[in-house]
Amino acid sequence: MVFDVFGTLVDWYTSISERARRIAARAGVELDAERLTVLWRGRYGPALDAVRLRQRPWCDLDQLHRESLAETLAELGVRLAEADQEELVAGWHQLRPWPGVPEALAQLRRLLPVAALSNGHIRLLIDLTRYAGLSFDTLLSAELAGTYKPHPAVYQTAARLLGLAPDRVVLVACHGWDLAGARQAGLRTAHLPRPTEWGPNAPARAVPEADITASDITDLVGRIALLATPASG
Amino acid sequence: MVFDVFGTLVDWYTSISERARRIAARAGVELDAERLTVLWRGRYGPALDAVRLRQRPWCDLDQLHRESLAETLAELGVRLAEADQEELVAGWHQLRPWPGVPEALAQLRRLLPVAALSNGHIRLLIDLTRYAGLSFDTLLSAELAGTYKPHPAVYQTAARLLGLAPDRVVLVACHGWDLAGARQAGLRTAHLPRPTEWGPNAPARAVPEADITASDITDLVGRIALLATPASG
Repeated sequence: MVFDVFGTLVDWYTSISERARRIAARAGVELDAERLTVLWRGRYGPALDAVRLRQRPWCDLDQLHRESLAETLAELGVRLAEADQEELVAGWHQLRPWPGVPEALAQLRRLLPVAALSNGHIRLLIDLTRYAGLSFDTLLSAELAGTYKPHPAVYQTAARLLGLAPDRVVLVACHGWDLAGARQAGLRTAHLPRPTEWGPNAPARAVPEADITASDITDLVGRIALLATPASG
Repeated sequence: MVFDVFGTLVDWYTSISERARRIAARAGVELDAERLTVLWRGRYGPALDAVRLRQRPWCDLDQLHRESLAETLAELGVRLAEADQEELVAGWHQLRPWPGVPEALAQLRRLLPVAALSNGHIRLLIDLTRYAGLSFDTLLSAELAGTYKPHPAVYQTAARLLGLAPDRVVLVACHGWDLAGARQAGLRTAHLPRPTEWGPNAPARAVPEADITASDITDLVGRIALLATPASG
């Protein structure tokens, strides 16, 4: 069982916007922290595309976040010192988990092997899992495939490292594009909804297609407990 | 901080020889289980060399163990059914930890990030850590570098994935060849002695050179606690 991390397990919107508000207040800079957060995250997909489409070589999220933050600040007409920008970039290593996530992962690990499968690089994931108290059997990352989800190589590399046929691996994610990529690479999929991922006022999204559609993480654990044999495989 | 696994954290000699004895008794085959274990493990270095020297492409330990077991059985003139041989090969996924290891790793993880750095492939390490109750921030493996320790690429790949300069990484191992490889790749080293790694009657070995020489794992934890800052880096 592999888990997407940003959005699915941790709440980047609240964590990053609080950090932005704090940094702006300290620097005496006027800033709409929520707007910055949403615009910054909005540049995430296009930044990954450049690597996915091989328009540039592998480049980790710290560097992509650094570049897209500078672009976002320019768009907003906000000037922020380099050290403050670095503190914002580092914020992606310290995101709070959604309620119940640490407990759910611990429960699932008693049933079967559970890994992260994130676009975050291994170092970022080490920092983030330590900060958020997330426990995995191992961390799997787009970095190990040299490209980003939803490129099929990322899911295929994960299955290969787990020593499993792709259809013996379930990806849990809140994003339709991630579930679709996993399905295309032959994995099973589970949808975990995170309606406030983009903030409390974000518009509702269509429920994406998946083999399992959980109403929340407790429901997911219950369904997996029914399916999994007690011995790990 | 990265840990070698076979020999350093888990006792392959006792685990494998017990399994060999059980399988031989069940099959009604006469077998010196301790001798088989030592001869089998003795073929480990040469098997890795073939990959390290690029005489053959990457090949995981299950396959290398399978081949070297067949050679060892032939050397001993012992016939064992294929299923029994596979059960022995699978034994390397289920090795018991040395006393105090699970507790020591948990203590160290409160001080700093701790990863495995093993010649075992990721799937083997997942199975082994679950079986032995070993807890890491992530699993790093020779598999991620496509060659085996002590090739410098394995240590350098580990440092790169940890996002650290090599001299900010400490390898803990009981084997001189592993510590020497790590040192050559620019890592710091800590020696943890395992005098009965090759069984209770194995001859004493010279203490290898290392930045830290611990008398046992409790001593190692104490020394790291003195060096490490409480906040993880």
